[in-house]
Amino acid sequence: MVDIIRFRKEDLISYTIAFMSKLGVPASDAKIVGDVLVEADIRGIDSHGLIRLTTYYGSRLRNKYMNPKTPIRVVSETDSTILLDGGNGLGQVAAYMAMEGCIEKAKKVNVSIAAVNHSNHYGIAAYYALMALDYDMIGISLTNSQSLVAPTYGRTAVLGTNPICLAAPAYKKYPYVLDMATSVVPIGRIKVYEKKGQKLPLGWGIDDEGNITDDPKKVKSGGPGALLPLGGSDIMRGYKGYGLALLVDILCGALSGAGTLLDVGFPHESKESNVGHFFMAIKIDAFRPVVDFGKQIDYMVETLKNSPKAAGQEHIYIAGEKEFEKADYNRKHGVPLLTKVVEEIKENGKKIGVPFDIEPIG
Amino acid sequence: MVDIIRFRKEDLISYTIAFMSKLGVPASDAKIVGDVLVEADIRGIDSHGLIRLTTYYGSRLRNKYMNPKTPIRVVSETDSTILLDGGNGLGQVAAYMAMEGCIEKAKKVNVSIAAVNHSNHYGIAAYYALMALDYDMIGISLTNSQSLVAPTYGRTAVLGTNPICLAAPAYKKYPYVLDMATSVVPIGRIKVYEKKGQKLPLGWGIDDEGNITDDPKKVKSGGPGALLPLGGSDIMRGYKGYGLALLVDILCGALSGAGTLLDVGFPHESKESNVGHFFMAIKIDAFRPVVDFGKQIDYMVETLKNSPKAAGQEHIYIAGEKEFEKADYNRKHGVPLLTKVVEEIKENGKKIGVPFDIEPIG
Repeated sequence: MVDIIRFRKEDLISYTIAFMSKLGVPASDAKIVGDVLVEADIRGIDSHGLIRLTTYYGSRLRNKYMNPKTPIRVVSETDSTILLDGGNGLGQVAAYMAMEGCIEKAKKVNVSIAAVNHSNHYGIAAYYALMALDYDMIGISLTNSQSLVAPTYGRTAVLGTNPICLAAPAYKKYPYVLDMATSVVPIGRIKVYEKKGQKLPLGWGIDDEGNITDDPKKVKSGGPGALLPLGGSDIMRGYKGYGLALLVDILCGALSGAGTLLDVGFPHESKESNVGHFFMAIKIDAFRPVVDFGKQIDYMVETLKNSPKAAGQEHIYIAGEKEFEKADYNRKHGVPLLTKVVEEIKENGKKIGVPFDIEPIG
Repeated sequence: MVDIIRFRKEDLISYTIAFMSKLGVPASDAKIVGDVLVEADIRGIDSHGLIRLTTYYGSRLRNKYMNPKTPIRVVSETDSTILLDGGNGLGQVAAYMAMEGCIEKAKKVNVSIAAVNHSNHYGIAAYYALMALDYDMIGISLTNSQSLVAPTYGRTAVLGTNPICLAAPAYKKYPYVLDMATSVVPIGRIKVYEKKGQKLPLGWGIDDEGNITDDPKKVKSGGPGALLPLGGSDIMRGYKGYGLALLVDILCGALSGAGTLLDVGFPHESKESNVGHFFMAIKIDAFRPVVDFGKQIDYMVETLKNSPKAAGQEHIYIAGEKEFEKADYNRKHGVPLLTKVVEEIKENGKKIGVPFDIEPIG
């Protein structure tokens, strides 16, 4: 049995446009969403890829929990800053516009920030940070999310998994791309353990008493139980991960006026999610020639990769490296989708009258 | 026996000025260093307080490893950015000037960044981030440091403990101040365990084979062994802490042209340390009225503190809270110094002809 099926990128984006158009999304917006989703599958982050077309986005659009028109409004703007109201539309569309604005501003004033409120899930954080690389800039992309993570000494989820992403260009090596949730693991990872009947490593999650548990059934989205922030227990300095999650919430939520903590909605809730995002672009040659910067990144990558390995290990990895390797392969051989994701898309496509009948590769 | 002795802040700063002047530091620079060091003691971070006057700074100045004049040079400058060469002088002086410049620029252009190369240890990261609060700005302060931390799957220290600090103003509550090393613990914590003959929690450090160890003797500054990045083992996602340490090194080192990774010098080395710093200031009212922002921070603090506690816990803390509480107390009752630190200062002061004869409080 085939676990994955490969498709042409253009075909998947075309399908996304057709699918979303049927749900009222303008084609140009759907194209952005398609590109963000497909790019996730290309980079091997299938949890954030086309699987979300019918789950997160499909269901929220069908239920009219999101505004398909994404009526973005510029709330305020200066030479170096922009605040957008995402109009409870597609997070990708608002995020794309925000990062584009950021880059345009940074071209002129070297450093710029965009914040977005009233938004929804925006897909992979890295997509927007990566946009900066084409302009010899460092890109930063943060978002808050629905509460799944307990603060240290708490026993309920109050914080989102609030990812931190930074992309910086190298010279000959892959760019540096850190894209990490500030929880130890995402909730999906817990579900995988539950499905396999495996015990959780101690430190990933807590039960409804706030005790660290190895039982994946006790760590549920929406409770009982919660994920732990990066670090895990207090003895392992989980309060640092908690502090980082809060840092992200402050920059995404408090600065933009979006929801924070428990006020960020869950996908299944009819209320507005009011997700907040934060983007930044830094023009490198305001500090040093881009080539010098890139060469120093190359040197750092080499130094790390050539440094002595722990017993039994052969490689030291650099953040983003594995995703670039997967992307190189997938751009050549086609975008891999899990068979069950394809089936789900087919089923949901049929329901709304947009059959998924594109040809797989090979 | 008294463990701590309390002094007046002004007296300690005056002494620092006298001490450093004797070692060739201009009085105005020594005043900055004194304020940064004493503020650390006031905030309860005694590892970064006046203990360093005779150890780190005293020894590097006496050995002429640092330039006491801190000949800072503006390498390049735009409306929103500034790059300083710290002239291998006192990190505090360069950092203070950089953050001051950042704030001045952000007053005009809302967002600004300062980077510093050829610097030295700058004390507590929070000092500079906190400077932004007086101007209704968010402050960010990062620095790289000598290599003490192994990358995931490595077995030697390649990265610094590279702290991340962000300060954001609240309305009525304490400001949010996250100031965290990106390693699980600092090397000093390992030394405390060694002194007490205690075993390390698993995940704090590795031995010279790269295996996680509970033996503090196997985790030494300069090796063998190394600290682990936040998260610890790979199963606990230590690679995220590793990614954050590298993020800090990129912004502090690669962007400024300072040393990175193994090229950042150790305090005992005669070579230039070439430490790099990164600062940022964000003017909040470019996005929202400062009061609205502050009120949302207050609300977040309350929500977190009032959320249900884990079994056996009574409080959920907010980053920075404990330090503000300590500072409130110490500003009233005097700056606490460990008796052994006072003795060390007396001894070193006598050596260079600057007797420490100030009166303790009470």
